[in-house]
Amino acid sequence: MVKSIEWKNDRIRILDQRKLPLDVSYIDCDNYKKVIDCITNLSIRGAPAIGIAAAMGLALAAQDIHSSDYGGFTKQLRNIGVEMTESRPTAVNIEWAVKRIMTLIEKNRDLSLDFLKKLIIKEAQAILEEDIVINRTIGEWGASFVKDGDRILTHCNAGSLATGGCGTATAVIRAAVAQGKKIEVIADETRPVLQGARLTTWELMEDNISVTLIPDNTAGFLMKRGEIDLCIVGTDRTVRNGDVANKIGTYSVAVLAKENNVPFYVAAPMSSIDFGISSGDDIPIEERAGEEVTTICGSYRIAPEGVKVRNIAFDVTPAAYISAIITEKGAFSPLDIHRLEDCEREPENFRISSYER
Amino acid sequence: MVKSIEWKNDRIRILDQRKLPLDVSYIDCDNYKKVIDCITNLSIRGAPAIGIAAAMGLALAAQDIHSSDYGGFTKQLRNIGVEMTESRPTAVNIEWAVKRIMTLIEKNRDLSLDFLKKLIIKEAQAILEEDIVINRTIGEWGASFVKDGDRILTHCNAGSLATGGCGTATAVIRAAVAQGKKIEVIADETRPVLQGARLTTWELMEDNISVTLIPDNTAGFLMKRGEIDLCIVGTDRTVRNGDVANKIGTYSVAVLAKENNVPFYVAAPMSSIDFGISSGDDIPIEERAGEEVTTICGSYRIAPEGVKVRNIAFDVTPAAYISAIITEKGAFSPLDIHRLEDCEREPENFRISSYER
Repeated sequence: MVKSIEWKNDRIRILDQRKLPLDVSYIDCDNYKKVIDCITNLSIRGAPAIGIAAAMGLALAAQDIHSSDYGGFTKQLRNIGVEMTESRPTAVNIEWAVKRIMTLIEKNRDLSLDFLKKLIIKEAQAILEEDIVINRTIGEWGASFVKDGDRILTHCNAGSLATGGCGTATAVIRAAVAQGKKIEVIADETRPVLQGARLTTWELMEDNISVTLIPDNTAGFLMKRGEIDLCIVGTDRTVRNGDVANKIGTYSVAVLAKENNVPFYVAAPMSSIDFGISSGDDIPIEERAGEEVTTICGSYRIAPEGVKVRNIAFDVTPAAYISAIITEKGAFSPLDIHRLEDCEREPENFRISSYER
Repeated sequence: MVKSIEWKNDRIRILDQRKLPLDVSYIDCDNYKKVIDCITNLSIRGAPAIGIAAAMGLALAAQDIHSSDYGGFTKQLRNIGVEMTESRPTAVNIEWAVKRIMTLIEKNRDLSLDFLKKLIIKEAQAILEEDIVINRTIGEWGASFVKDGDRILTHCNAGSLATGGCGTATAVIRAAVAQGKKIEVIADETRPVLQGARLTTWELMEDNISVTLIPDNTAGFLMKRGEIDLCIVGTDRTVRNGDVANKIGTYSVAVLAKENNVPFYVAAPMSSIDFGISSGDDIPIEERAGEEVTTICGSYRIAPEGVKVRNIAFDVTPAAYISAIITEKGAFSPLDIHRLEDCEREPENFRISSYER
C-alpha cells in the first residue's frame, strides 16, 4: 500500500498527490515552511494525513529553533503551530496534532532541549504509527456493516492517501474485501480537485479492488435505481451533536441516501472528533480559489475568463442523515458521539455492533 | 444573442459548442450525415436545438434524394428519420421533428417532389422560427415565479445554445431581468461535458446577466445555507405523469431543493412533452462513452487508464419533486401535464399563474 507521508533521514517525504494518477513523485521537506506549502497546495490532503504532516512539520521546525531556554523554544514552536493550524481551517486534525506536541513539551519541561527535540520527532512518528493501527481498527468495526455483494459509494478520498495507513472509509472497504466479501466501489469523482477520479480509483486499482468512477451528479440517480447499497465517507471534523464536516458534496450524498433508504456511514478516527464545538454550524468552512473550478489541475481552462466562482471546499452533514459513525472505539449513533469525550470508559454500552438493512 | 443553428445558403450552419468558451467557430453541414455527427458529438445539444437540427437535416437529406416517385422518396426519408431519431435517444424532440416533417409530406403527397422538397425546407425553418417565439413565451409565463433579488440555480444549459431562441430555463431568467428584477444565476458546472461551466456562464456573461459558477456537488449545501431561492432547469422529455428526464444531476438538484423547501421549476416547450409515455421509468436513458468522464474535453486525462466508468447522460426526476412545469401554454402542476394533450382547448382552467413562496 502506498505511503502518503514518511519521516526519512531527518526529512519528511510526501507523495505529491497533485500529480496522481499520471505521475508518482515525492517532495522532500527539510523545513516546516515546505510542509505548510504541501498542505495548502494539496500535495498532501485528507484530515488524518495533514495531522501527521503537521506533527512532523513541528518536529522539523523544533530542530531548527536555536533558542537556548525552554520559554523561548516553546514560544517559537507555539507560533509555528498556529501557522500550521491556520493553513487549512476545516479539518481539526492539524489542531489536534499541534496540541498533542505542545502537551508533550509541557509535560517534559524538565528535560534538556536537545532531548525534547528528539522526543518531538518520536511523538510525530508515533502519531503516524498509531494512525496505521487506528485505520485498521476502524476497518474491522466498519466491515460488520458491509454485506457480500455490496455496491459501496464513497466520496472524495478517505483512503491510504488521506491517512498514514489503509484509510478510514477505505479501511472499511479493505477489511470487508479481506473477509472475502465481493465488493464494488462506486467512486464519486469529487469536483473540483478530483480526489475520487485521481486518487480513490488509483489506490483501489493498485490493490485490485473493483472500482467504478462516476461524476458526482450521478450518485443520486444510481441510488434511485437501487444500484448503491451503502455509502461511506471520511470526515474532516465531527462535533458534539454528531454533525460531520467533510468534502463538499458529502451533504448532498447523505440527503440522497436518506431519500432512497440507503445507509450512510462516516468513518472518523477520534483525532477528527472535536468535542469543543457543539454544532456543525460552528465548524469553520474553507473556501478556496476559483481557479480550482475554472481550470483542471491548474492547466486546462473550462470556463470563461473572469467568471465568478464559489469554491466551497467542505460542507456539513447534519447528524440526522448519518446511520452510524465508525471510530477506532467502535461504531456509534451520531447522537452518542459526545459520550466518547470521557476517554476513561470503554463505550460498550452504546456501541452499535451491527445494523439491520 | 448567439445563434446555435441557422439555415444559410442551402446549408446548415452549426455553432460548434464543443469548443466554447475558448473558441467561437462554426460547422457548415452540406449533408445530413454531418448533422447526425454534430448531434452525436455534441457540437449541437439541447433538446429543442437538436429537434431543429433534425428537421433541417431531413430538409438537407430530402434535396439529395433522387427517387422520382413519392413512395421511393418517402421511404428513403423515413429511414433517414429513423437514423436521426436513434442518434440521441433521450430527448423526444428529434422524434417530434421527424414526425412533423413526415406528417407534412403525407399531407402534401399530391404535390410535385420538387415542390415538396422546398416545402420541407420551409417547414424546418418554421420550426426554428416557432422555437424563437415559444422560448419568449415560456420566459413570459415563467418570469412571474421570479422575485426581485432571487438567486436562481440552473443545471446544464437550457439557454440560447440549447434552442433556436433565448432558451427555455434561461428564457425565464432573461424575461425576469428584462422586467427589471435583479437576479443572480448560480450555474452548476454539469459534469462531465461541462455545459454549465462552458456554455451557460458564457452566454449569460455575453448578455451581461450576473452568473456564478459552482461544482455540481455544491448546489445542495448552498440550498441548506439558504443561498438559493429557486431552481429552474430544462427537459429532454417530460411524460404523461409529469416525470421529467433531463441532464444527469437534475434529480439530485430536485431532491435537495425539496429537502430545503426551495421551489423547483422545469421549463418545457410542448415539443419536449411525450404524451405517448405514461411514466418516467419508461424513458430511454442514454449512456455515453467513459472517456467523457476520464478526460476533459477529450484531451486532459484525470483518471487512471482502464478505470471502469458509468457515464449516464440523463436522469429522471419524479413529478413529486417539481413545483411547476412551464410551457408556452402556461405553467402547470406536473400532475396536470397530461391534460395538455388535448390541443384544442386553452388550458386556462388548470394554469398556475403565480406561486406563493
